[in-house]
Amino acid sequence: MILEGIVTTTTPDGTPHLAPMGPRINEAGRRLLLRPFPSSKTFRYLKRFPTGVFHLTDDVLLLARAAVGKIGQLPALRPALTVPGSIIVDACRIIEFRVLTIDEHEPRIAMDCEIVRTESLRDFIGFNRAKNAVLEAAILATRFSILDPSEISNEFRKLRIIVDKTAGERELEAMAFLENEWSLYQGNQRP
Amino acid sequence: MILEGIVTTTTPDGTPHLAPMGPRINEAGRRLLLRPFPSSKTFRYLKRFPTGVFHLTDDVLLLARAAVGKIGQLPALRPALTVPGSIIVDACRIIEFRVLTIDEHEPRIAMDCEIVRTESLRDFIGFNRAKNAVLEAAILATRFSILDPSEISNEFRKLRIIVDKTAGERELEAMAFLENEWSLYQGNQRP
Repeated sequence: MILEGIVTTTTPDGTPHLAPMGPRINEAGRRLLLRPFPSSKTFRYLKRFPTGVFHLTDDVLLLARAAVGKIGQLPALRPALTVPGSIIVDACRIIEFRVLTIDEHEPRIAMDCEIVRTESLRDFIGFNRAKNAVLEAAILATRFSILDPSEISNEFRKLRIIVDKTAGERELEAMAFLENEWSLYQGNQRP
Repeated sequence: MILEGIVTTTTPDGTPHLAPMGPRINEAGRRLLLRPFPSSKTFRYLKRFPTGVFHLTDDVLLLARAAVGKIGQLPALRPALTVPGSIIVDACRIIEFRVLTIDEHEPRIAMDCEIVRTESLRDFIGFNRAKNAVLEAAILATRFSILDPSEISNEFRKLRIIVDKTAGERELEAMAFLENEWSLYQGNQRP
C-alpha cells in the first residue's frame, strides 16, 4: 500500500529539508520503498546522509505547501531518536528509516529503506472528504506542467465542491492556496 | 468539519444496526450533528433509542458494504461504556453519543448529539489515495438512482486508476465490490 506524507532529510549545512512523498510500505511494517525523482533534493540529500523520517499527517495545508515547494516557515521540529534526522512534532505518526540500497537504473529511483522506529504522536482525524480532495489537488499541483490545462481546471472545480461541503478552516485555506498556485502558473504561461 | 464513518444504533429487537454517516463535528469536540434521511433506519432507531456510537475507521470494505446496505456478517462488536450501544472493535476511534434534540423540519433531519465519550482503539493508517477513492466510490454508490449513469461510469473509471496505483488487498476488494454493485444496478435497470 502507498501512503502519502512528508519526508524530512538533512541538507549539507545540517538544516532539515521537507518534501511530499508517497512511499510503498510493506505489510509487515519493516520496509519503506521510496521513489524520489533523480532530480529531487530528497534523492540528493539521502545519497549523502542515508537516514530520514517519513511523517503521516492530516495537515493538508503543510502537504499542499510542500507539494509546490513553498513551505514558508519550517514547522516545529525535534531530533529523531534512532537516526540522524528531524521529526515534525505536529505529525500524526512518524517512521524513522535508514536507506539500505539504492537502485538508480529506473527513471524513478528505488530506495529500499529499513524502518528503525515508529511513533504515534496524535490521532489522524479520519476520513474527511475535503482533506482527501486537497490531497488530490496537491498532487495535481505537482503536475501542472505535464497535464492538460482544461483537465486541471475541471478537476479543481470538482474538488472545490467537495471542499465547500465538508471542510474545516485549514482545508479551505489549503484549497485556496492551491487554486492561487494554479492561477499564478497559468499567468506565467501566457506570452 | 464533516467526518465520514459508521454509526451503530439499536434496533427494537436489541440487535445493532450499522450505517454510513457523515456528521459534522464541532471544533471543541463536544457535539455531533447527525443528518439522517427521514426514511432511514438510523433515524427511526435513534428516535426510539436516542443513543449510539459513531466510528472513524479506515476499513473501506466495511464502509463500502454499509453504503449499499450489504454488511453481510456483522463485524466483531462490544458494548459501549457510557450509553446503550455497540462498538465495532476494529474501528480506529469511537464516539459514544446521546441525542439531545431532533429537528424534523428539514428534508434531512438534524439531530444535535452530545459526545459523552471518545476512545482511540488503533491508528488510522493515514492518507492512502486508494482508500479515499473507494470512499468516493461508496458515496457514488448511494446515489446510483440520482446521478447520470455516464457520470458514474466515468468517475468509477478514474477512481479505479487511483486504486490500481496505490491500493492494498482490502481496497482492491472494496473497489471490485462497488464496481460489481454498479454492474448489478445497471443490469436491473434494463427492460
